Amino acid sequence: MTDAQPTSKSTPKSEQTRTLILETALGLFRERGYDKTTMRAIAQEAGVSVGSAYYYFSSKEHLVQGFYHRIAAEHRAAVRSVLDTETSLEKRFAGVLLAWLDIAEPYHEFAAQFFKNAADPESPLSPFSPESEPARQEVVAVHREVLAGARTKVPAELEESFPDLMWLSQMGLVLYWVFDRSQGRERSRRLAERGARLTARGIVLSRFRVLRPLVHDLHDLFADLLPGMAQTAARRKDRRSGEGEGEERGNGGRESAGSGR
Amino acid sequence: MTDAQPTSKSTPKSEQTRTLILETALGLFRERGYDKTTMRAIAQEAGVSVGSAYYYFSSKEHLVQGFYHRIAAEHRAAVRSVLDTETSLEKRFAGVLLAWLDIAEPYHEFAAQFFKNAADPESPLSPFSPESEPARQEVVAVHREVLAGARTKVPAELEESFPDLMWLSQMGLVLYWVFDRSQGRERSRRLAERGARLTARGIVLSRFRVLRPLVHDLHDLFADLLPGMAQTAARRKDRRSGEGEGEERGNGGRESAGSGR
Repeated sequence: MTDAQPTSKSTPKSEQTRTLILETALGLFRERGYDKTTMRAIAQEAGVSVGSAYYYFSSKEHLVQGFYHRIAAEHRAAVRSVLDTETSLEKRFAGVLLAWLDIAEPYHEFAAQFFKNAADPESPLSPFSPESEPARQEVVAVHREVLAGARTKVPAELEESFPDLMWLSQMGLVLYWVFDRSQGRERSRRLAERGARLTARGIVLSRFRVLRPLVHDLHDLFADLLPGMAQTAARRKDRRSGEGEGEERGNGGRESAGSGR
Repeated sequence: MTDAQPTSKSTPKSEQTRTLILETALGLFRERGYDKTTMRAIAQEAGVSVGSAYYYFSSKEHLVQGFYHRIAAEHRAAVRSVLDTETSLEKRFAGVLLAWLDIAEPYHEFAAQFFKNAADPESPLSPFSPESEPARQEVVAVHREVLAGARTKVPAELEESFPDLMWLSQMGLVLYWVFDRSQGRERSRRLAERGARLTARGIVLSRFRVLRPLVHDLHDLFADLLPGMAQTAARRKDRRSGEGEGEERGNGGRESAGSGR
């Protein structure tokens, strides 16, 4: 309860403490709600000092970002099997969405409660916020891989737009899932499957040139109007022109490639 | 404060009382929040008996539905000029969306507060709920008129799907607007204009037969997965087969038809 610094900073030990704090926080958020849980209560429940808790997560918002990264990491692991073996675009996308539903299920109750904190796009907890960009980019990278490994080839000019739009449609699914009370989230699963089918067909149709401006405009509209997306769009543009400068982006370590037009 | 019945039921007087109660409720919702406002407090503030308040609105939810109808009626009046004179699909749709933003502006603060009550699609306050169907149908009817009076002709097979999807895109705008803190809602206005342009172009492209199944599937997906929409879809289907039976849809008393298969 005193303000002592964490006693050890060695990686595995500190990683354990970090995980302990995160787990404890999620437990309390679930029990008491996000708003009513203080950093002090989290530290107390985890058996660490308040200073230690703040050392690992400088605010409750950072705990939530930690949670987003954890979900993204579990998700990345869970999609390996489908992404390594499946070549149908529809099945790859559906597999990724269904895997997300599985991973997120233990947090469903928390998500429903937490929704009011994350729904405001200007909240740092919103998936659209600049603060959420690292976690968002981890997920967008998965969608990039969904496309890259599919038999369906995508016009080069849309290679960067589709993964963002796929992420956006995943957010639509998340919104639906938050309020889904059906047994086994059966309705969300149907939305994932049918949404994947629709999206895949839409992507296939992008071989018609007449449709491409529509995709660009849709993408630009979101990039312009959602607070955290403008940065992403700008970076994307740089990447396209600056090619292969191996810019590092830490967390997520996804990257590179690009291949140009 | 006693449980007296309303003293007069004559139309203009009772209409006045109804309006008074609704206005008072909206004022209190704005001041104290929806959850903290009781029917008793509304009656007291309006200077009517609790019994009278319940006579006009059997619950707070009914007050909100009354509010939705009022907004829809004001909106219908506000779009007349653009719908009577403009023939460009894009301008008609943009005009309708912009008019909604104007009408709704005085309620912006309330909407942001109220959002958490209406976001759950299973809440009777959700725009997707069966309870909201009458108000929803009033708005869908406006979108049907947007299409019907435009130079752009829509394939007959999509005439019933587009107005629902246009309504759905309006709900996307509403969601964005709720959280929009920009000066003069300038960002929402841009979304309305650019969204209208995109939608109009999408509708124009539906002349390509290859795209039509996508529109049908998108529509069916929403109809199946959103709680209040299934009914709407069924009624629509009936109407298409039962044609021209002159079904009335006045405030709330929509309905009838049915015809079943």
